[in-house]
Amino acid sequence: MINKLISNIQKTQAPIVVGLDPMMKFIPAHLTQAAFGEYGETLEGAAEAIWQYNKTLVDNIYDLIPAVKPQIAMYEQFGIPGLITYKKTIEYCKEKGLVVIGDIKRGDIGSTSEAYAIGHLGKVQVGKNSFYGFDEDFATLAPYMGSDSITPFVKVCKEEKKGLFILVKTSNPSSGEFQDRLIDGRPLYEWVAEKVVEWGADLMGDSYSYVGAVVGATYPEMGKVLRKLMPKSFILVPGYGAQGGKGADLVHFFNEDGLGAIVNSSRGIIAAHQQEKYAHIGEANFGDAARAAVIDMREDIRQALEGR
Amino acid sequence: MINKLISNIQKTQAPIVVGLDPMMKFIPAHLTQAAFGEYGETLEGAAEAIWQYNKTLVDNIYDLIPAVKPQIAMYEQFGIPGLITYKKTIEYCKEKGLVVIGDIKRGDIGSTSEAYAIGHLGKVQVGKNSFYGFDEDFATLAPYMGSDSITPFVKVCKEEKKGLFILVKTSNPSSGEFQDRLIDGRPLYEWVAEKVVEWGADLMGDSYSYVGAVVGATYPEMGKVLRKLMPKSFILVPGYGAQGGKGADLVHFFNEDGLGAIVNSSRGIIAAHQQEKYAHIGEANFGDAARAAVIDMREDIRQALEGR
Repeated sequence: MINKLISNIQKTQAPIVVGLDPMMKFIPAHLTQAAFGEYGETLEGAAEAIWQYNKTLVDNIYDLIPAVKPQIAMYEQFGIPGLITYKKTIEYCKEKGLVVIGDIKRGDIGSTSEAYAIGHLGKVQVGKNSFYGFDEDFATLAPYMGSDSITPFVKVCKEEKKGLFILVKTSNPSSGEFQDRLIDGRPLYEWVAEKVVEWGADLMGDSYSYVGAVVGATYPEMGKVLRKLMPKSFILVPGYGAQGGKGADLVHFFNEDGLGAIVNSSRGIIAAHQQEKYAHIGEANFGDAARAAVIDMREDIRQALEGR
Repeated sequence: MINKLISNIQKTQAPIVVGLDPMMKFIPAHLTQAAFGEYGETLEGAAEAIWQYNKTLVDNIYDLIPAVKPQIAMYEQFGIPGLITYKKTIEYCKEKGLVVIGDIKRGDIGSTSEAYAIGHLGKVQVGKNSFYGFDEDFATLAPYMGSDSITPFVKVCKEEKKGLFILVKTSNPSSGEFQDRLIDGRPLYEWVAEKVVEWGADLMGDSYSYVGAVVGATYPEMGKVLRKLMPKSFILVPGYGAQGGKGADLVHFFNEDGLGAIVNSSRGIIAAHQQEKYAHIGEANFGDAARAAVIDMREDIRQALEGR
């Protein structure tokens, strides 16, 4: 799947992943009204509005981008109906040829970790049959519990040819509270990065490992160090746009081959219609606004990479 | 909810939480056959078998225990039907007066963390209405991303009078990989413990904070230190039984008042019928085997606490 991600990036010339992290306040009134009209102001109504919103977004941008990253929390908050929309969104994006990164940040141990791995990336056995639960292509994972929490995922990834992005240095302001603390003179995130390399060593695609890392755009200097520490790990870079990361900050996350990083933008794309810059496109045409924002982001990254 | 947990512990004289972490291999054949007969060897069939299994377990032990801890991964692996059983299990346990600790180990930032908090402990707004998604009483959380990932949960807990257990020192063999590393001469888990105290300071029940910690029974010496570092934090103690933790190891996790800890056992209780010790009870009477195992565990802890 890392090979497919890279080939999608090369085809689109856009190292961009769009975070499908819908919030009710992003969704244009006409969609919400239609969904509530059919299902009432219920969890089912919210889930339907989100589904229609996602579908229109994907229809308008799928040819420009290699991947999407739905954040499961945004669906989980609407309980079972929300999770049904999460699953439908994954299926729809895959039909469109997109790589789907499930932003699930799970992390647990032993048989529990195995259950998460099976549920999200693999197949679960029921009697003589087996079934995919959510069937994302990649999943994000939290490393606090150590190797026990990662290796069951690595095993499933090997079978399924799927991949992982492990949290190394996250984009949020308080990420330094624990991640930056020095251990034998080096920050915790570097120790985690070394483990990422180790976990991924036996799981190589053509040029990059199936096991990647998450490093926030908001910490470009750390990105520079981490890029060198993990030369064969793809880096998923959140924090561009709404969180403050700029195009120029991104150059350090890429290797000389122009690959090695994929930059996430969520509300910067999916709620572009609510930004002043794209307001003229109109709420009703939110898909067009998203498309314009993807094109602008692609150009911003292209210029930054050319300028280095 | 911390007050209810404590009152339930005092009523049952059992600082025990039963991990409802069902695996298909635990479930007696007659239940699986009945469920597959009705729904086929499908995700729905598996989910029905798990639901019937949980229901019988709870019916047989609810009067002896204060709380249950369903591990969401074990349900999530069966996709949407599995999560429907997770939700039904929570509802059923609450009807029986049990405190429900959702073992979800979520951890994310900002609006994402808020979405998880709302989905599991709070209510989500849909138009003029609001709905509980999963409605657990407590949730477990991973701390790697720092305060940004915890405070949205603390806010919801304040509104809903619910609680948290933050991973501090986990029970698994590789937990030391990152958690034990020394930062200014002290292990990372102690730094996390100090934050747990800080996060919970403003959220006190009658005698303990709504914000507790997870510390594995497999590391009793560390438990001793952490007990003193977090005097007002309830400690959820996994790792008893199957993972190797013994009754005698548990004494350090309790305060002088005999409170402050709740010990988890999962397969030691719910799959007791598969242990030699309880095999004579018979697979068909797995609920009785679970009941016997709870009584033995209660006695093991009682003796350990009396002997200190």
